[in-house]
Amino acid sequence: MPKLTGKRSKKAGLPPGSLVHTGEKKAGEVNISVIEYDEANFQKRELKTIEECFLLKDRPAVTWVDVEGIHQIDNIQKLGDCYNFHPLVLEDILNTDQRPKIEDHENYLYIVLKMLHYEEKAEVVMEQVSLILGPNFVFSFREGMEKNVFHSVRERIINSKGRIRKMGADYLLYTLIDTIVDNYFVILEKMGENIERLEEELIKNPTKQTLHQIHQLKREMIFLTRAVWPLREVINVMERGESSLIKDSTRIYLRDVYDHTIRVIDSIETFRDLLSGMLDIYLSSISNRMNEIMKFLTIVGTIFIPLTFVVGIYGMNFEYMPELKWHSGYFTILGLMAAIGISMLVYFKRKKWL
Amino acid sequence: MPKLTGKRSKKAGLPPGSLVHTGEKKAGEVNISVIEYDEANFQKRELKTIEECFLLKDRPAVTWVDVEGIHQIDNIQKLGDCYNFHPLVLEDILNTDQRPKIEDHENYLYIVLKMLHYEEKAEVVMEQVSLILGPNFVFSFREGMEKNVFHSVRERIINSKGRIRKMGADYLLYTLIDTIVDNYFVILEKMGENIERLEEELIKNPTKQTLHQIHQLKREMIFLTRAVWPLREVINVMERGESSLIKDSTRIYLRDVYDHTIRVIDSIETFRDLLSGMLDIYLSSISNRMNEIMKFLTIVGTIFIPLTFVVGIYGMNFEYMPELKWHSGYFTILGLMAAIGISMLVYFKRKKWL
Amino acid sequence: MPKLTGKRSKKAGLPPGSLVHTGEKKAGEVNISVIEYDEANFQKRELKTIEECFLLKDRPAVTWVDVEGIHQIDNIQKLGDCYNFHPLVLEDILNTDQRPKIEDHENYLYIVLKMLHYEEKAEVVMEQVSLILGPNFVFSFREGMEKNVFHSVRERIINSKGRIRKMGADYLLYTLIDTIVDNYFVILEKMGENIERLEEELIKNPTKQTLHQIHQLKREMIFLTRAVWPLREVINVMERGESSLIKDSTRIYLRDVYDHTIRVIDSIETFRDLLSGMLDIYLSSISNRMNEIMKFLTIVGTIFIPLTFVVGIYGMNFEYMPELKWHSGYFTILGLMAAIGISMLVYFKRKKWL
Amino acid sequence: MPKLTGKRSKKAGLPPGSLVHTGEKKAGEVNISVIEYDEANFQKRELKTIEECFLLKDRPAVTWVDVEGIHQIDNIQKLGDCYNFHPLVLEDILNTDQRPKIEDHENYLYIVLKMLHYEEKAEVVMEQVSLILGPNFVFSFREGMEKNVFHSVRERIINSKGRIRKMGADYLLYTLIDTIVDNYFVILEKMGENIERLEEELIKNPTKQTLHQIHQLKREMIFLTRAVWPLREVINVMERGESSLIKDSTRIYLRDVYDHTIRVIDSIETFRDLLSGMLDIYLSSISNRMNEIMKFLTIVGTIFIPLTFVVGIYGMNFEYMPELKWHSGYFTILGLMAAIGISMLVYFKRKKWL
Amino acid sequence: MPKLTGKRSKKAGLPPGSLVHTGEKKAGEVNISVIEYDEANFQKRELKTIEECFLLKDRPAVTWVDVEGIHQIDNIQKLGDCYNFHPLVLEDILNTDQRPKIEDHENYLYIVLKMLHYEEKAEVVMEQVSLILGPNFVFSFREGMEKNVFHSVRERIINSKGRIRKMGADYLLYTLIDTIVDNYFVILEKMGENIERLEEELIKNPTKQTLHQIHQLKREMIFLTRAVWPLREVINVMERGESSLIKDSTRIYLRDVYDHTIRVIDSIETFRDLLSGMLDIYLSSISNRMNEIMKFLTIVGTIFIPLTFVVGIYGMNFEYMPELKWHSGYFTILGLMAAIGISMLVYFKRKKWL
Repeated sequence: MPKLTGKRSKKAGLPPGSLVHTGEKKAGEVNISVIEYDEANFQKRELKTIEECFLLKDRPAVTWVDVEGIHQIDNIQKLGDCYNFHPLVLEDILNTDQRPKIEDHENYLYIVLKMLHYEEKAEVVMEQVSLILGPNFVFSFREGMEKNVFHSVRERIINSKGRIRKMGADYLLYTLIDTIVDNYFVILEKMGENIERLEEELIKNPTKQTLHQIHQLKREMIFLTRAVWPLREVINVMERGESSLIKDSTRIYLRDVYDHTIRVIDSIETFRDLLSGMLDIYLSSISNRMNEIMKFLTIVGTIFIPLTFVVGIYGMNFEYMPELKWHSGYFTILGLMAAIGISMLVYFKRKKWL
Repeated sequence: MPKLTGKRSKKAGLPPGSLVHTGEKKAGEVNISVIEYDEANFQKRELKTIEECFLLKDRPAVTWVDVEGIHQIDNIQKLGDCYNFHPLVLEDILNTDQRPKIEDHENYLYIVLKMLHYEEKAEVVMEQVSLILGPNFVFSFREGMEKNVFHSVRERIINSKGRIRKMGADYLLYTLIDTIVDNYFVILEKMGENIERLEEELIKNPTKQTLHQIHQLKREMIFLTRAVWPLREVINVMERGESSLIKDSTRIYLRDVYDHTIRVIDSIETFRDLLSGMLDIYLSSISNRMNEIMKFLTIVGTIFIPLTFVVGIYGMNFEYMPELKWHSGYFTILGLMAAIGISMLVYFKRKKWL
Repeated sequence: MPKLTGKRSKKAGLPPGSLVHTGEKKAGEVNISVIEYDEANFQKRELKTIEECFLLKDRPAVTWVDVEGIHQIDNIQKLGDCYNFHPLVLEDILNTDQRPKIEDHENYLYIVLKMLHYEEKAEVVMEQVSLILGPNFVFSFREGMEKNVFHSVRERIINSKGRIRKMGADYLLYTLIDTIVDNYFVILEKMGENIERLEEELIKNPTKQTLHQIHQLKREMIFLTRAVWPLREVINVMERGESSLIKDSTRIYLRDVYDHTIRVIDSIETFRDLLSGMLDIYLSSISNRMNEIMKFLTIVGTIFIPLTFVVGIYGMNFEYMPELKWHSGYFTILGLMAAIGISMLVYFKRKKWL
Repeated sequence: MPKLTGKRSKKAGLPPGSLVHTGEKKAGEVNISVIEYDEANFQKRELKTIEECFLLKDRPAVTWVDVEGIHQIDNIQKLGDCYNFHPLVLEDILNTDQRPKIEDHENYLYIVLKMLHYEEKAEVVMEQVSLILGPNFVFSFREGMEKNVFHSVRERIINSKGRIRKMGADYLLYTLIDTIVDNYFVILEKMGENIERLEEELIKNPTKQTLHQIHQLKREMIFLTRAVWPLREVINVMERGESSLIKDSTRIYLRDVYDHTIRVIDSIETFRDLLSGMLDIYLSSISNRMNEIMKFLTIVGTIFIPLTFVVGIYGMNFEYMPELKWHSGYFTILGLMAAIGISMLVYFKRKKWL
Repeated sequence: MPKLTGKRSKKAGLPPGSLVHTGEKKAGEVNISVIEYDEANFQKRELKTIEECFLLKDRPAVTWVDVEGIHQIDNIQKLGDCYNFHPLVLEDILNTDQRPKIEDHENYLYIVLKMLHYEEKAEVVMEQVSLILGPNFVFSFREGMEKNVFHSVRERIINSKGRIRKMGADYLLYTLIDTIVDNYFVILEKMGENIERLEEELIKNPTKQTLHQIHQLKREMIFLTRAVWPLREVINVMERGESSLIKDSTRIYLRDVYDHTIRVIDSIETFRDLLSGMLDIYLSSISNRMNEIMKFLTIVGTIFIPLTFVVGIYGMNFEYMPELKWHSGYFTILGLMAAIGISMLVYFKRKKWL
């Protein structure tokens, strides 16, 4: 369940560009992996210190630096100084409650995305991924909640599968974004399954638990909407091709991701509509059940209350009550009461209460 | 009932352009029929192997290749290679949870639509239709759930009815789209009938079943909306005429389909509004019925509870209760109770509870 | 009550431009009246056969052909051929579930509008009116449900009242549209009266009937909205003056109709808002009444149930119950019960339940 | 409370430009006051006949003609003829259910606004004000419900307070509009007070009356919205300065009124949101009260119904009921029943029903 | 809790530019602090009289005049005259119910913002801040509810921390706006905490109090929305750079604040969505509880009402009732009743009412 309260307030009063990590403090390690490749060769390394990274700066091959774990602020600071990234960009990388956005800083593009994971307790967790595209490099900064996010991309580079080795850094950027968006579909399918399960539950046996699960899903949809809607604009900006860092040949692929994003948004909207409808169903089913309960009480009550009155009459102690002396008085009254009861039942049957 | 969960996740992690069929696996046959025609002649064939298709490539007549069944991936692959379709286009043809869209690839237009069928259990089923328009050919790819979708178009070509033989491939494309959109009206009429039936049911005898049917229709409307809304934009793009593949003479026909699409959207909106109103009616009718039940219990209860109290009094065993000795005590009390009961009834009558 | 289901499906599978009348089949006569006029003269005729109409084609005076009844398809066909109207236009004239629209066919403008009538059972009926404006002629095609729609316009031409005889065909077109829009206000006033009557009913004595009438009005508003909203755009297009068939001098009048249309839309929106509010009031008044009923039962029950218990105690047959022997036992108990009852009433009074 | 039904239908069938007064017929007098002023001098007169007005036509000073009461149609007609106003403008002045609008007739601007008053019964009344701005004159036409609307403006001219005497007719126009918009704030404050009073009532003691007052306010908000929203566009058009009748120096003042209009709209939106929230609160408080009532009945019922059963048992007349013979049987049973009752109370206490 | 009713009506009838303070009258002091700085030096002073301020007018260094407390009208008047601010600007500074806006007066920019504070009783309080940017000066006018709003900025100037001393007046303006927007996050976090607390309460133990707190938060969200939405446009206008007073180097910082504003709006929208969902949950939980109560009454009632009837039968005084003579009659009946009661319980168990 996404938290409503970040630690954004830590920053209030600081000058712009102050580097403060606003995510959850983690003791975990920071892994920095670097892949350099061109059509013929590739080289993969795990960096020990951030300084090694600086040597890569002016090489001709495409370089991808993947930083997993952003809580060591001075790493980010050093990288920023070396590659001349704007302090506000560094600030945003550390500030993990950004919304998806793109910024064109002439020499590089800065992009913020949200990666989604599904944790054990059936909860969606968001992780911020920052991407920087330069002329021949891509930086990716991740919080590192899920280790193997970009595993398939790395495999593809190493095995030289698909187009990826033949094309430039912009295509690598596209591949990373595509991987993230493709992952949304996995999340949406799991949510779709949950919704279908709840719909069935709602028809068969709605409980208080069902309501809370509907509410829970609605809540997650709200956060998902906020995470995905701006992405549409981000990719649109890239596709429109105002930056020279993105080549024309990559544009058609971006249009494809754009379509995927639209479909993700479509699905979320559909889910939200469905969940709203489910709440209405839940409320009517509560009312229906109340009706049933009341009907039951009413039937029992209206049959026995008059009968109890009748037996009460013959329980009175008046001296002169002629019926009491009759030999068959008791059985007559029993018969009368049976008649009253049965005619009541017939009446309810006709009123369709039974 | 449309499924919420596709098999889109199969594709996560694959490079773009990987051909995976995400619809339901079918064992059924794949039928490929080809019609070549110009104003004077026409020729119709069923293809056995996809390779025969390649011979048609550079003929002057208009060629329409209708592929029914898209689960044989290598067919699509071969066609794509021969006609030089972009891998992403082929990927989209196989990926059956696309939303309607149009893509201009200079040499050809790629269009995705949704065909609707009404199955026996009164459920709307969607089928994806992909259309590719080239200078003198049209490809149509269908999942093949409904066999005779384009039957009437084929008839028209064979019988040379209407304008169709005199005009080019773009007019054929228009005819196919028009056939699909015309079919929407059939679906909408059936839904309209359902809604009118439900409205009557709602006034006469609303049951839990009515509620579920309203919910069911609402659900289908949500999916319909998503299938038809983007179509508006698709046809609008074609009509605006930015592609040289669509001649000016065809534009007026496209405007006509555009109008039809708007009317379909209008109807769907109307239906959604009506269904929302019906839910409100349902809820109030439940509340009304609850009121009736409670009123009944209240009337019976408030008449007999005081009377039972009265008979209880004379059932007490006090030694000195003067009334018990009275000769007419019993009948006096009976009369008194009748008076209480009748005045109660009058009171309820006045309060309009009876 | 507008029907949800037209006969639009009749057309599925037919080539575009096929003439099929989709309204209700009528045996009634078709009246074709023609008026020719210029500033000095006018001539009025009822046509027997459609062929007479063709003679009028190239005369200099303004000609108005009013076709009442569109179910004789060959009439429309012949007219269309003679005046060279596009087959799609003829198709749309016959297809009576169009939405308001305007089409510019260079030599003529084609306009579709909805005329509203109020039938005896207080229901709004829609009739499609198609107008065609040529350089010096106006055609009007009506379904013919209401005979005297354009009576006042005809009178004005005959009596040479107002500007109408001095101006061209475009002013005649304006006059016809103005007549239709003016009629909307009549309908809206009747609806406004209904709404005010319902509002009063809602406060004084809401019944199930009230609910159904609110629903009925809401339903009609939905259809009205769909009929009037697009009209705004239609008139706007005319006023913007992209067609040379409409003279500048007529533009100021079109702006006036535009204003009226906006006001009609405004009123409909207001009515819809009011009706939504009324439903809420209805629901709360049901809940309120339920509360009243429950309160009544609760008061009666909680007073008499304990008292019945007390009398039950002294109806027990234990051998040693000292109170039963007391001489004043009976009256003491009666007094005690009176005290209990009165204090209950005081309690309810204080709780504001009485 | 604004009426839903105007007398607009009076006009159906009449040619455009027919002068019909659609407001409520009034016998009251018509007051026409004229003020002429320039920086040095001013002159104020009450006109007896409309003809006097014509003499003012070509004077160099700024002339303001304020017509209070528009039910004497021939006055308006004569004025219109003399100043060459378009017949449709005159029609609109008389037709008092216009929405705010601006029309540029080259030689003059025609503006319609809504003036608001608060009548004794706490109801908002709307009055239509039409303004015509010429090169050196302003006409204002009012229905005359509130006499002193423009009193403060007249005072300012007479006392030469502020900028007004130094500037032209356009500034006078601005001043009149500003006066009307400023008055909206007075109305909004009164409504705000009502809403705050209702909010308090809702928390302390909501009654059926509260509901009707919420509904009443919602209803007034609907009408207010329709009266103020279009005003925004009207003033925006003036400020954008497409008309040469409005000087650049006045534009900054118009921007100020524009801001005020936005704030009025903002407030209305806020009020509508608040009122919607209040309805929800009302409904929940009804439900809450129902719960309380039911809880009370349930507690009383479930305590005494079992006890009544117990006393019923010992009221049975079996010959062999050993307990009846016991000497302390009566008191044992009384004790038992007390125990049952108390444990019930404890149970309810624990369930938090007490 | 924001008041609905300002004192805006005080101004009705006054000429534009009249200076009236519409906030709450305060007796508190007015503090005017001035800081002059360039890269090398800075000087800080508290002004005693407003006249001292005039001396600063044409100095080359950046001057920041911070006016805390705006209820001394003549101070504002004198400042305005000296710096040649437009009377309408001065009017707006005093009128504290402005919405955020920006006005470009060629020589200076006038900006209105809303500052938020969180008061002890967990209420959000708004304070209007007006900023004026000239070529080398910034004026800030505050109501002075919170003293230390701009404390951190002053510290940064004095300690020469960050970029602030090296850049011009536009950067100072940015810093002030950034400080205000950063403060929004603090408020939002507190609100987020409240919402999370309420959500928990809602699941565990919803009371009437919970409802009022939800309503309270919704109400505050309405006001927050109105305060923050227009800010987006204000900053957007600044960033687009139409004014020469804002240098290009500052633009990137404004884009950063713009992002923050979007995130604030996003959060508010999320909170509003969540609060709406919570109301639904509250209503269903009331209904659920009602169901529970009714179920309880129904179970107790339907078990004991028939049993009471049975004991009533054997309480009748007929002379010939054979069962009464049976030796084991009493115990047979007791057993029978136990059987009835137990089978009832089993029935309820099966119906899942227990």
